[in-house]
Amino acid sequence: MDLLPLNLGIIGAGRIGQLHAANLRHRIPGARLLMVTDAIAAAAEGCARKLGIPAHGTDYRAILDHPDIQAVVICSPTDTHTEIIQAAAAAGKHIFCEKPIDVDLARIDAALAAVKKSGVLFQVGFNRRFDANFQRVRTAVVQGEIGTPHQVHITSRDPGPPPIEYIRKSGGIFVDMTIHDFDMAQFLVDSPIVELYATGGVRVDPAIGEAGDLDTVVILLKYASGATGIIENCRQAVYGYDQRVEVFGSAGTIRVDNNYPNNAILSTQASVRRDLPLHFFLDRYTDSYITELNDFLGAIREGRPSPVSGEAARVPVVMALAARKSIQENRPVRLAEIG
Amino acid sequence: MDLLPLNLGIIGAGRIGQLHAANLRHRIPGARLLMVTDAIAAAAEGCARKLGIPAHGTDYRAILDHPDIQAVVICSPTDTHTEIIQAAAAAGKHIFCEKPIDVDLARIDAALAAVKKSGVLFQVGFNRRFDANFQRVRTAVVQGEIGTPHQVHITSRDPGPPPIEYIRKSGGIFVDMTIHDFDMAQFLVDSPIVELYATGGVRVDPAIGEAGDLDTVVILLKYASGATGIIENCRQAVYGYDQRVEVFGSAGTIRVDNNYPNNAILSTQASVRRDLPLHFFLDRYTDSYITELNDFLGAIREGRPSPVSGEAARVPVVMALAARKSIQENRPVRLAEIG
Amino acid sequence: MDLLPLNLGIIGAGRIGQLHAANLRHRIPGARLLMVTDAIAAAAEGCARKLGIPAHGTDYRAILDHPDIQAVVICSPTDTHTEIIQAAAAAGKHIFCEKPIDVDLARIDAALAAVKKSGVLFQVGFNRRFDANFQRVRTAVVQGEIGTPHQVHITSRDPGPPPIEYIRKSGGIFVDMTIHDFDMAQFLVDSPIVELYATGGVRVDPAIGEAGDLDTVVILLKYASGATGIIENCRQAVYGYDQRVEVFGSAGTIRVDNNYPNNAILSTQASVRRDLPLHFFLDRYTDSYITELNDFLGAIREGRPSPVSGEAARVPVVMALAARKSIQENRPVRLAEIG
Amino acid sequence: MDLLPLNLGIIGAGRIGQLHAANLRHRIPGARLLMVTDAIAAAAEGCARKLGIPAHGTDYRAILDHPDIQAVVICSPTDTHTEIIQAAAAAGKHIFCEKPIDVDLARIDAALAAVKKSGVLFQVGFNRRFDANFQRVRTAVVQGEIGTPHQVHITSRDPGPPPIEYIRKSGGIFVDMTIHDFDMAQFLVDSPIVELYATGGVRVDPAIGEAGDLDTVVILLKYASGATGIIENCRQAVYGYDQRVEVFGSAGTIRVDNNYPNNAILSTQASVRRDLPLHFFLDRYTDSYITELNDFLGAIREGRPSPVSGEAARVPVVMALAARKSIQENRPVRLAEIG
Repeated sequence: MDLLPLNLGIIGAGRIGQLHAANLRHRIPGARLLMVTDAIAAAAEGCARKLGIPAHGTDYRAILDHPDIQAVVICSPTDTHTEIIQAAAAAGKHIFCEKPIDVDLARIDAALAAVKKSGVLFQVGFNRRFDANFQRVRTAVVQGEIGTPHQVHITSRDPGPPPIEYIRKSGGIFVDMTIHDFDMAQFLVDSPIVELYATGGVRVDPAIGEAGDLDTVVILLKYASGATGIIENCRQAVYGYDQRVEVFGSAGTIRVDNNYPNNAILSTQASVRRDLPLHFFLDRYTDSYITELNDFLGAIREGRPSPVSGEAARVPVVMALAARKSIQENRPVRLAEIG
Repeated sequence: MDLLPLNLGIIGAGRIGQLHAANLRHRIPGARLLMVTDAIAAAAEGCARKLGIPAHGTDYRAILDHPDIQAVVICSPTDTHTEIIQAAAAAGKHIFCEKPIDVDLARIDAALAAVKKSGVLFQVGFNRRFDANFQRVRTAVVQGEIGTPHQVHITSRDPGPPPIEYIRKSGGIFVDMTIHDFDMAQFLVDSPIVELYATGGVRVDPAIGEAGDLDTVVILLKYASGATGIIENCRQAVYGYDQRVEVFGSAGTIRVDNNYPNNAILSTQASVRRDLPLHFFLDRYTDSYITELNDFLGAIREGRPSPVSGEAARVPVVMALAARKSIQENRPVRLAEIG
Repeated sequence: MDLLPLNLGIIGAGRIGQLHAANLRHRIPGARLLMVTDAIAAAAEGCARKLGIPAHGTDYRAILDHPDIQAVVICSPTDTHTEIIQAAAAAGKHIFCEKPIDVDLARIDAALAAVKKSGVLFQVGFNRRFDANFQRVRTAVVQGEIGTPHQVHITSRDPGPPPIEYIRKSGGIFVDMTIHDFDMAQFLVDSPIVELYATGGVRVDPAIGEAGDLDTVVILLKYASGATGIIENCRQAVYGYDQRVEVFGSAGTIRVDNNYPNNAILSTQASVRRDLPLHFFLDRYTDSYITELNDFLGAIREGRPSPVSGEAARVPVVMALAARKSIQENRPVRLAEIG
Repeated sequence: MDLLPLNLGIIGAGRIGQLHAANLRHRIPGARLLMVTDAIAAAAEGCARKLGIPAHGTDYRAILDHPDIQAVVICSPTDTHTEIIQAAAAAGKHIFCEKPIDVDLARIDAALAAVKKSGVLFQVGFNRRFDANFQRVRTAVVQGEIGTPHQVHITSRDPGPPPIEYIRKSGGIFVDMTIHDFDMAQFLVDSPIVELYATGGVRVDPAIGEAGDLDTVVILLKYASGATGIIENCRQAVYGYDQRVEVFGSAGTIRVDNNYPNNAILSTQASVRRDLPLHFFLDRYTDSYITELNDFLGAIREGRPSPVSGEAARVPVVMALAARKSIQENRPVRLAEIG
């Protein structure tokens, strides 16, 4: 193995934790997974057994105390993130944390201050930044292939809504779903977003409205540069996961379509058709999860800055809070009003 | 000839007037073009000579006085529309009028009252409704192929801005350019638009800003049904005329792309590419201009209602005024505020 | 009218004759249709009445005798072509003749000799040469966009077979259907075709086989340059008219797809689909029929050479005969064996 | 680990051997790679060190003698295949062998007889059968989505030719390159191929001709069912690896395009374009190499028949020999003439 090996621990063995664990075990060159913890003992044990991870437990502090572990991957519930970040920073472990850091700006700021003080690398799991399609769009923007960006359009729809119990604890669609698109909006164009106007309704399931949330929203963004952005979200696109982006600029436009399991075109006497797009994020973003962790390890090894810094990851939370306020007051809200 | 012949006169022999005249002369079965008038004598004469139209003049009243003429096509400057409409209605001539009827609601209402009183057929030239692509989208919506519409997205960008002198007299981008998209928004979804929020800037040419106009705008619409709409406009898309639409609903989504002069795909060691889309409206909407006049004649012959009524054509003007107000006050504006 | 007017007569008022007549009457600037003849009096009269053609009759010689007629369009049955061509040439009329000239090489050669002697312009109706897609492919080849052509691939399938009575008189699939593709093969690449190998069978309808014909064939061509060509034909493609071409060369490849009534993409929970392609040649090649006649008139006016000369139009007949021989003997046949 | 572990050895640590070794080490659940051998000691050792394989050597017999090894993956030079197959079969090891088995039919038959006698599982590395696109085409054929297949079209072009030294030892384009397409032809349609006609030339590099080989070929195939197939090959497509397939049948047609690194469409004032396709087989067929080994292990575990049997893998060799004969004699050759 030519790459310097890095020892890691995973905190949280839920769906995304298991995904990262499997990738670190099999797909990330140079990664050594030494321990996994989860508040549910059976989850940690099952994950360790399945992947051959030497140690497991229920208390994340065991990972922070492990002398050989250099970096942690935080996949525990969102409300535990800032506590663990601060503890990990104090223990001198590099940190990869799932999004969002938190939904409370004061807690985020405290965590980021701890990270800054410690000097560890801190990366947030906005995995879509590492998708080949969105990377290509950003490359076009950065390299001037479309000139000065004028209008950004992000289409982001899930194949179906999560269970109502999930919705109730999710913090609302802006924090739970749009947050990825808020990050995409800042990722694609290098100009701060300064104002937004949000509108939306309950069109998929009345139970979502009864739970106090929206399921179908549109957000109009303004960048400091004068460019505008549009995000269209819906909790249900019956044809599958709908993840598209377009950036229009003074020298052209670039757009990416959904990803498909194959590109076969079938012509019959009924229609000319193809199969549905890849169904959901685990299929669509498979490679992006690998790339983000590869980049995390690469940044640690080579002393490069984090590809998704804490400061960048704070912005989508501010935007989500602004969107909520915009909905409540039916007016454009400046991000500076939020903090 | 199996179709009942209809005798027509054309008022105004500018670019669009000449287009309609040529179509009526060569492409619309059963149309007989008897006279053309234009305030500029040479324009009327040139058009008459080129197309073999028997009579021409500078005063549109000669057309209204012509006993054999059954219908008029009004292609004169916008500020003359309502006067001519009222005179034509009084003369009992069916009326096809270029868009917009006017930019003053009181004048529009007076004209529409005159039309109503006279009982003549009245159709406004929102030709894009007759485009095969947009027709297909509307068919999908009407037939329930995409279920209940949730989100409409209209991309509408010109290949380049008109001369500054034109901009100065245009009434502003909302009245001059977006008005087509405002009509498209109401055409695609059968629910009244009740509110909009507009934002925009000057990004193509500072001279447009100095003339008091915007060149790049985004408008967010709300339908009474709770659906939302987005319009993205720019006076300059360097790759050519950019006219696309998507309607997303509970059972699916339908989208139409630009039209191209050919569908050849050329793969070289540089890229996989195709030629640019059809450059501007005369190329892109060639067939829609023919279809709208065919439908005008068909509606007269068969006593069918107008495919683009005066009441429908009034809405985009209200929306344009609302958009202007929304820009000025940076807030959502209800259409009921305008009239 | 700026263009020099040209007076024409049409010989044959069947489906293609009526199409050309309507185009000459309405769509071809400068064309004046003075007479139509058809062996069936009612056909000639109906066509004349419908299009307002001043004269009609049953004998084509009336057209040749008409002192004002400068050019004829021959749309009569194939077995009458060479006689009419020779008479028209003797009468000094320019000639547009539907394909094929004839299926007998000696008769073709006699007709072409008469044309040559008379000096009239002679153009054969290989209309696909004037299609925007195939024109774009040829342009790419001529301008070197794909370098030296290596491999040509022509897909050509009808939506459904013609009636058996038609098949019986058609001269066989190679003369009736593939002949267009044989011409396309020579149109796309500027190198003589020297040899071919054909194979095929009866896969659509046994009655076609009983009539002594094939309904599904593949022909492999060799150009003098060393390039190869493939033609795939079938009398029935249930999804509609299938007309595609690809030319692969040393610097790239260019391909054209079918044409569609619209480009809408509909995504539902079943599939991502579009409507079927334009159904058959009258829809798909509408514009090419107009362009070929425009070019015919333009060549007469400006003394340009014929865009589809008699010599060029002879080649596909040779190829059809070679293909028939190749099927019979199951071996590659050199075109020089045929004549 | 839920899957029954299987112990394997790899014979040959060249490019494809290293690829399989890395996949078995990291991507194939339940695979345990116990030894690697290569005639070049440094190659075996380098591979073992890089992937943490416990044992390595220069003699493949060490793998056959290893009591824990249950299956071998043969990636050595083609001329060593049959000897190793026979030895492995005698040792009772399941066998995965790279294509082609050999280019001599007698040697192939001897090897297959040894396999049959031993009862071990035998799979040949026609990896393209496991590609998602080609799988989708086959599924459409098998499930009757396109009805009865009439015409198959396989486009298969490399981005550039291999070194001349490689060409010299390759056995010729039919054995080295087309062999994959011969297998694809039999994979897509369930009817034996009975005859073929091949033609070709030297169009990419005269040195290839001097080495006695062709670089650009077309082969026309006939299935027993009466269906036809076309294979178009070229050693150089400057736009990258060109791997497409279409099967046309009585109820429709299905086609697959190339695979791309992203699906971004960039529109500028020059063109509407996308990036080039994935460059070569290691990029394009990455997943198919994993799937074929997963299926190999799955077939062993579950006692399923080989997904690419020796009998199936013999056919493309027969076809390659027939193609060579067809070129030499410029006539269609029945496969029964070869053996």
